[in-house]
Amino acid sequence: MSAPGERAALSDLPLREDLRGRTPYGAPQLDVPVQLNTNENPYPPPPELVADLTAAVAEIAETLHRYPDRDAVALRTDLASYLAGATGAPLTVANLWAANGSNEILQQILQAFGGPGRTALGFEPSYSMHPIIAAGTRTDWAPTPRRADFSLDVDAAVAVLAERAPDVVFVTSPNNPTGQSIPLADLRRLVEATAGIVVVDEAYAEFSPQDSAVHLIDEFPTRVIVSRTMSKAFAFAGGRLGYLAAAPAVVDALLLVRLPYHLSSLTQAAARAALRHAPKTLASVHALAAERDRVVAELTGLGFAVVPSDANFILFGQFGSPQAAWQSYLDRGVLVRDVGIPGHLRVTVGTPAENDAFLAASKEIV
Amino acid sequence: MSAPGERAALSDLPLREDLRGRTPYGAPQLDVPVQLNTNENPYPPPPELVADLTAAVAEIAETLHRYPDRDAVALRTDLASYLAGATGAPLTVANLWAANGSNEILQQILQAFGGPGRTALGFEPSYSMHPIIAAGTRTDWAPTPRRADFSLDVDAAVAVLAERAPDVVFVTSPNNPTGQSIPLADLRRLVEATAGIVVVDEAYAEFSPQDSAVHLIDEFPTRVIVSRTMSKAFAFAGGRLGYLAAAPAVVDALLLVRLPYHLSSLTQAAARAALRHAPKTLASVHALAAERDRVVAELTGLGFAVVPSDANFILFGQFGSPQAAWQSYLDRGVLVRDVGIPGHLRVTVGTPAENDAFLAASKEIV
Repeated sequence: MSAPGERAALSDLPLREDLRGRTPYGAPQLDVPVQLNTNENPYPPPPELVADLTAAVAEIAETLHRYPDRDAVALRTDLASYLAGATGAPLTVANLWAANGSNEILQQILQAFGGPGRTALGFEPSYSMHPIIAAGTRTDWAPTPRRADFSLDVDAAVAVLAERAPDVVFVTSPNNPTGQSIPLADLRRLVEATAGIVVVDEAYAEFSPQDSAVHLIDEFPTRVIVSRTMSKAFAFAGGRLGYLAAAPAVVDALLLVRLPYHLSSLTQAAARAALRHAPKTLASVHALAAERDRVVAELTGLGFAVVPSDANFILFGQFGSPQAAWQSYLDRGVLVRDVGIPGHLRVTVGTPAENDAFLAASKEIV
Repeated sequence: MSAPGERAALSDLPLREDLRGRTPYGAPQLDVPVQLNTNENPYPPPPELVADLTAAVAEIAETLHRYPDRDAVALRTDLASYLAGATGAPLTVANLWAANGSNEILQQILQAFGGPGRTALGFEPSYSMHPIIAAGTRTDWAPTPRRADFSLDVDAAVAVLAERAPDVVFVTSPNNPTGQSIPLADLRRLVEATAGIVVVDEAYAEFSPQDSAVHLIDEFPTRVIVSRTMSKAFAFAGGRLGYLAAAPAVVDALLLVRLPYHLSSLTQAAARAALRHAPKTLASVHALAAERDRVVAELTGLGFAVVPSDANFILFGQFGSPQAAWQSYLDRGVLVRDVGIPGHLRVTVGTPAENDAFLAASKEIV
């Protein structure tokens, strides 16, 4: 059956000029035995979390005809409690904000502090959504290269910040897709070098031994925002819950740009259930970090060049053709990620069995 | 306990200039006996829907460590099936798109077709989020007045569209907060008068006898987008599910601006459950329409000036001070909405008992 209006093509539409010729973001979602391409936690939610979440949803479902709490106060209170416990910083509900994934968090930040006539700067390669969300909010994007080994040259970064004076700076720690964290002392130097907002993207922080940037909020309340997600360590990628910690005034600013009722009652209830089971879920973090170190060691032993990682993924090479190597892994039932870095692929740390499958394929491909 | 960073005030932040001095959107969320302020469906989800939704969530919860289907194909298929059945238009999955509430749908439309240097036009008073989302996407807003009785002067509108040549036009039918629908023949005249995108906001369409604008999609595939929501007739405000119908190329355009994985697995599963129970849920629509007509008749009998409504709310007056009248209702345990229209208040149609409480208060306040 033909769909109404299908004779019109994308090029017939009055699309914004800067979107013409673009293709949608996206890692392929392929159904293969070993999926190590999107940095998910390989361990499913434990049965007691599933039961608790289901009970919470059953209760909230009876009131779904009513709008959710627009300000998600109970959820933000629970997030503050978790993050305060995890970092030792005395965070409260007034410091926390939540949205449908950290992508929406970052978009709200750029709607408030970026936009036309303003510039966001990032140290690349890094999370590929940073420039995409900048474009979506019409914020100029200033890409700044990392060292050849993907580490951040802090002296050079300080100089660039002083020279470019960006309105927003993205610092990803641990950095995706390369893996390295940035020590708090270095982060402080970056914050001191700019009058703009520094967004520390800590999507993978639970896997890292470094201290969280939340410890800088009280020192730099007008400049430091720490974004986080429940997609990775919390094994909650399907639940879509991103959040941030910042000074209360930053949260006030985001209230001006957030779409009202952006977080459903279901999302709020489900995320709160997931937070109640944090100790159990986060136990997998230690296992994954140990597995990461094992995979790094074995890959290195096979002769691969491996980038040091504080996250739940590993960037490795060198490949003459990452595209061909990606296909070779796929042919062996292993889905990894070609992140567009010459000579490299990224693999998510999975279960021991998944990692063994990946290493067996690597032995054939090296 | 003081929150880290709370010594900084909003005015200390490098907020965008156009946001300074603004206050967040929001109807008061007050805990009163009779809540008739946000056009919710007063009937809670039936027990069999709650059970079905809970079972669906219990199943999906076991895979929450995985990202959702980025393109929500199963949900869009179900939405197409519902909307095709409700309107008679042969819509398919390729015509449908979904997001976290119609606010996010509208934001994505303006990210693709509006933005800096482009103009969106609306016929006011109408849904107050249209200009707010325009501002959030840096789209110039061209407010165009309705007649004094809040109906749309189609001849005047056609002239304005020809003169202003906006990139995006919002037409709300039934119009919120005033209630009138626009006949399909008039909508066609508006679409023919512009080369821009016409967004027909049909959030309240299920309550209206008028034909849906989805019948214009095949005729004007590059110009007509119909936005809808499950918040009203579907009694799913807490689930946050907005959607649109348009030519497939429009959906392709939105894929360029949507945040990846914007719709959680929970939202997709819950909305699909709600759609499975559409016949039962939508049975309330007829009851509410009948109640609306009763309330209109009684208000008119009390001497109020009542605006004709095809929706689940009623705009009525005249009040010397709507603020004072709003407080008088609240003092009697009835929460209505002051939508900022001189002399008027808006009341949602509730259950017969809620409407009786509202009418009893009205008798004292008139």
